[in-house]
Amino acid sequence: MRDVTADNITDVFMSYMGEGIDPRLKEVLGSLVTHLHAFAREVNLTHEEWNQGIAFLEAAGAISDKERHEFVLLSDVLGLSSLVDMLHSRPEGTSSSVLGPFHISGSPPLAVGGDLRKDFDEPVLLVEGIVKDPDGNPIPGATLDIWQTAPNGLYSSQDPDQDTYSFHGLQTVGADGRYAFTSVRPVEYTVPSDGPVGDILRACGRHPWRPSHLHFIAEAEGFRPLVTEVFPEDDPYLDQDTVFGVRKDLVMRYEEMPAGSFPAEGFELSGKVDEGYLRVRFDLTLVPRD
Amino acid sequence: MRDVTADNITDVFMSYMGEGIDPRLKEVLGSLVTHLHAFAREVNLTHEEWNQGIAFLEAAGAISDKERHEFVLLSDVLGLSSLVDMLHSRPEGTSSSVLGPFHISGSPPLAVGGDLRKDFDEPVLLVEGIVKDPDGNPIPGATLDIWQTAPNGLYSSQDPDQDTYSFHGLQTVGADGRYAFTSVRPVEYTVPSDGPVGDILRACGRHPWRPSHLHFIAEAEGFRPLVTEVFPEDDPYLDQDTVFGVRKDLVMRYEEMPAGSFPAEGFELSGKVDEGYLRVRFDLTLVPRD
Repeated sequence: MRDVTADNITDVFMSYMGEGIDPRLKEVLGSLVTHLHAFAREVNLTHEEWNQGIAFLEAAGAISDKERHEFVLLSDVLGLSSLVDMLHSRPEGTSSSVLGPFHISGSPPLAVGGDLRKDFDEPVLLVEGIVKDPDGNPIPGATLDIWQTAPNGLYSSQDPDQDTYSFHGLQTVGADGRYAFTSVRPVEYTVPSDGPVGDILRACGRHPWRPSHLHFIAEAEGFRPLVTEVFPEDDPYLDQDTVFGVRKDLVMRYEEMPAGSFPAEGFELSGKVDEGYLRVRFDLTLVPRD
Repeated sequence: MRDVTADNITDVFMSYMGEGIDPRLKEVLGSLVTHLHAFAREVNLTHEEWNQGIAFLEAAGAISDKERHEFVLLSDVLGLSSLVDMLHSRPEGTSSSVLGPFHISGSPPLAVGGDLRKDFDEPVLLVEGIVKDPDGNPIPGATLDIWQTAPNGLYSSQDPDQDTYSFHGLQTVGADGRYAFTSVRPVEYTVPSDGPVGDILRACGRHPWRPSHLHFIAEAEGFRPLVTEVFPEDDPYLDQDTVFGVRKDLVMRYEEMPAGSFPAEGFELSGKVDEGYLRVRFDLTLVPRD
């Protein structure tokens, strides 16, 4: 095309696509570039702003490595990661939410009723619920990969003072679909804000905080895997999670249980908790595979 | 917002912007994210595709350094760079076109009529024209920064066999606004295609070629600087420049001039060219500053 203009350049771009191109690639890239061009026209993007954008991408590339994923963080704080999650959630199941960068593979087995709190001093948190299908039937043999922050706000992978699998466990539920474990309250924390994405947050007058949450990956044969998080209703950042992870059905409540009421059996800590404790009940609903 | 959904997440994103935010940043980032979300919804972007996108950005970051600007190249082949150029071109002046990565500062002075061909054997190319305002008046004292490929398709900065300023010159026009120099035909070449952007071109069935061109940066006091390129009408890639740089008014023609007709004076090569040569006449129109 020897007469490319601001009006026809999107069509020219599309016309460059070869005949053998994968149809889905054409659809995805075509839509992406159509929106990119529409954005530039809409705001009348200047050369200086374009330069700032290129400098941002180069800085995000430069700070990235195997441990630091600045482009993932960018997608998270722009809401793209959560949007992709939501587009593929099913209304009949528990909502999915962001995996985040702190999941590690190979969590040790955690028996139903097992304990993650170990030697930490914080009040005991008892979490339990049923893993079930959309009709309410329990799913025997479902597995739950569970992880959370320690009381200092750090995941084990961020904290040299914690064991590798501190606050990580893999639980397999029995015939009744029931999961249960003890732990401590996870705490709110900030996403990494010392890089280019942090600069964006500051320029936008945004904070880097996430509300506290428990992570789950629930899997069972014949069901779609569920990656999700649950959040306490009293968290100060519940309405402003900087990565947009909160869904209405993922909000849970800590019940304050009185001293002397800890279950006498069924838990690793049974017989060892005299004081009051917190209890969460949260069921997880998995959706059958198509 | 504790009930983020695929439908409201763009509004939630906008609601996170602080009160003190720069209004232009809010406009630009708001539009960018609105389009990003619309894109994801439109194509129902999958987690796998999202992963591919993140991997692409990380690979583009990893290959980038002070010399290699993969994100600029990405912007070029997606048409964004040219679109920004066109959005800020004025219809009353010569169109702007991409600067490209091969401009270098500090080009040596090139007198009107001076020569860039030096010891190269290719046929002489004579380029001349007037630097003028939109009313056709010459602009005395305008400067032209001129650069192009050598006959091997390489710019001096890419080619250890060329001097630093080979095929680079800075010309200041006189009272008549006329510029003139001799050189050789620039040749078509490919953008770097050994990185992630090259992978995109291949997946799209696109080639990495640019049509041959002469680069100019024209500047004069009281006028907007003009960054542009001119392309010969017979170039095989004129209708498919992989970076979308061709504009209708930037197409020029090589006139084949007969042996013995080279100007007898006014050129560094006057008296030294007996054979036929090529001639290009191309005027450059600058637009007054606002």
